[in-house]
Amino acid sequence: MIATKGYAAQSAGAPLGSWNFDRREVGEHDVLFDILYCGVCHSDLHQVRNEWGNSIFPMVPGHEIVGRVKQVGSAVKRFKAGDLAGVGCLVDSCRTCENCKEGLEQYCLNGNTGTYNSIGRDGAPTYGGYSNQIVTHEDFVLHVSDKLPPEAVAPLLCAGITTYSPLRHWGIREGHKVAILGLGGLGHMGVKFASSFGAEVTVLSTSPSKEENARQLGAHKFTVTSDPEQLKAVTGYFDFILDTVSAEHDYSMYLSLLKTNGVHICVGAPPTPAQIHAFKLIGGRKSLAGSLIGGIPETQEMLDYCAEHNIVSDVEVIDIKDIDTAYERMLKGDVRYRFVIDMATL
Amino acid sequence: MIATKGYAAQSAGAPLGSWNFDRREVGEHDVLFDILYCGVCHSDLHQVRNEWGNSIFPMVPGHEIVGRVKQVGSAVKRFKAGDLAGVGCLVDSCRTCENCKEGLEQYCLNGNTGTYNSIGRDGAPTYGGYSNQIVTHEDFVLHVSDKLPPEAVAPLLCAGITTYSPLRHWGIREGHKVAILGLGGLGHMGVKFASSFGAEVTVLSTSPSKEENARQLGAHKFTVTSDPEQLKAVTGYFDFILDTVSAEHDYSMYLSLLKTNGVHICVGAPPTPAQIHAFKLIGGRKSLAGSLIGGIPETQEMLDYCAEHNIVSDVEVIDIKDIDTAYERMLKGDVRYRFVIDMATL
Repeated sequence: MIATKGYAAQSAGAPLGSWNFDRREVGEHDVLFDILYCGVCHSDLHQVRNEWGNSIFPMVPGHEIVGRVKQVGSAVKRFKAGDLAGVGCLVDSCRTCENCKEGLEQYCLNGNTGTYNSIGRDGAPTYGGYSNQIVTHEDFVLHVSDKLPPEAVAPLLCAGITTYSPLRHWGIREGHKVAILGLGGLGHMGVKFASSFGAEVTVLSTSPSKEENARQLGAHKFTVTSDPEQLKAVTGYFDFILDTVSAEHDYSMYLSLLKTNGVHICVGAPPTPAQIHAFKLIGGRKSLAGSLIGGIPETQEMLDYCAEHNIVSDVEVIDIKDIDTAYERMLKGDVRYRFVIDMATL
Repeated sequence: MIATKGYAAQSAGAPLGSWNFDRREVGEHDVLFDILYCGVCHSDLHQVRNEWGNSIFPMVPGHEIVGRVKQVGSAVKRFKAGDLAGVGCLVDSCRTCENCKEGLEQYCLNGNTGTYNSIGRDGAPTYGGYSNQIVTHEDFVLHVSDKLPPEAVAPLLCAGITTYSPLRHWGIREGHKVAILGLGGLGHMGVKFASSFGAEVTVLSTSPSKEENARQLGAHKFTVTSDPEQLKAVTGYFDFILDTVSAEHDYSMYLSLLKTNGVHICVGAPPTPAQIHAFKLIGGRKSLAGSLIGGIPETQEMLDYCAEHNIVSDVEVIDIKDIDTAYERMLKGDVRYRFVIDMATL
């Protein structure tokens, strides 16, 4: 076993603190790497507080992991010591179901294995990226370009792919009018990708103060959703809404902003059900859809696209001792746009 | 004006009875025809009882109209006296918006004009097909083949196009597993079309007694949704669910029957909002969508397809004096599968 330093929650809602644990030995298909940076995702906070009711403690959160390969198993050909590498939300899946075979491991029909807070196929709990190293099967390790700052690449592994994948799946391109609902960790990546794909991008936000930043990120327009006049101006306007909001919100109102055939794509999930009147969908052949992160091949494609187009996350690098403060600030939306832990501070 | 005999409700919930009214004179682009048959749609009942809160009285319901052309305006080239013709749910639209230009008059951005219970662009209320004749602009008149029994064609104008259009829009074809939810006027047409398009068709119903009929209509499978074992067998099974149910039902449960990328298409609309947890969509990149009747070009395409493939509605022809009884029976689901009024009984 490989002695590992981590930062863990010992119980629901407890502050995080140092915790030592073991990683498995490097198997023939495994990659061991030193973690340089790990992004802080809102779901880390949900899980640490057991807000989804399925938390396993002690919990080492973190699924936006970038590091440098230290050792590879005997059968590993695609990575070597010294490479920059990444791990996102998944570390395993059944590999045999039709979704896995299509590279849609996030929708594995037999259940994928999350990077943390999962029970792996070996029966052991998985521990995430708030730690100094990780051992992962090569099939779930991504190549990270050394052209980009690694701390700003880390959030691409979740916030990036979560927005990239639906924008690609629904074919967002020049000529489309796309709204990004919510301008946080996910939303700011949504703006960058949608604008990079050629769409006209509008940020929908309750905070007028975010307009300048939204435009800097690549948004062409900005709508303050609490202003009825501004809302009226975008009624029936959008081909797509990429909805990154995980707080409760009025889906019916947003559906009215879609054009005929428009699609409202949820990547954020509020704790309570949305109230959707079927008439709101029927009246314009509209869809309410959802999308979950992305599969491994698409995550690699996204990382390569980012390297080619110089796209990274806007990050605030923090000391791991400040993680609880970071969670509090994240809850208030006080981050532009993603906290990333410098693992040298562990 | 043209003196016309109809059957009308004089106020919300009142029994229908004879009522004489005037149709406009035949304009240069108008088609006047004698109505032979008019289908009885569930929405007739909703409107007569003012259940959607927008009813205009006196009301002559009916938007599944088949008749024989009696007279055409001087500019009409596509119809002549003696032709079989039909009118569906629409008799006008703005003709200038992008949806109208694409033949999606049902989604006219300036508001289409319904065949009844609408105010026409001339300011006069529209009166529907429970009447002996109708004057309609040629652009909203459909050609009806004389190969098919006209009484069984009438329901194609609403129940037919309402199911044909989404099945075409979402490209249902061989290899797809399609569930038809609800086996009434809409559902039985959904079974016929989906099966004609080559899909494997399963009827989802609460009534085991409908199985034999479902199979006769072309369904390959039948699932009793109140039986947990039968439901379990189709979990994650369908590419599409065509949801024809306008009573309240558990959308989340049905979403779980969809495969990854599956689409639940609502053509029925319950009076209360659906409760949709975004997780149910996100977990399999699923969509909840809606679709409204169909545009004029597609309605003609559907009628031509039906003539070519010998598809009609299963109907029970009634005397117009029995319309209130028919409504009561329809409410109980006691009709296989569409009542059609023989207008000779008016």
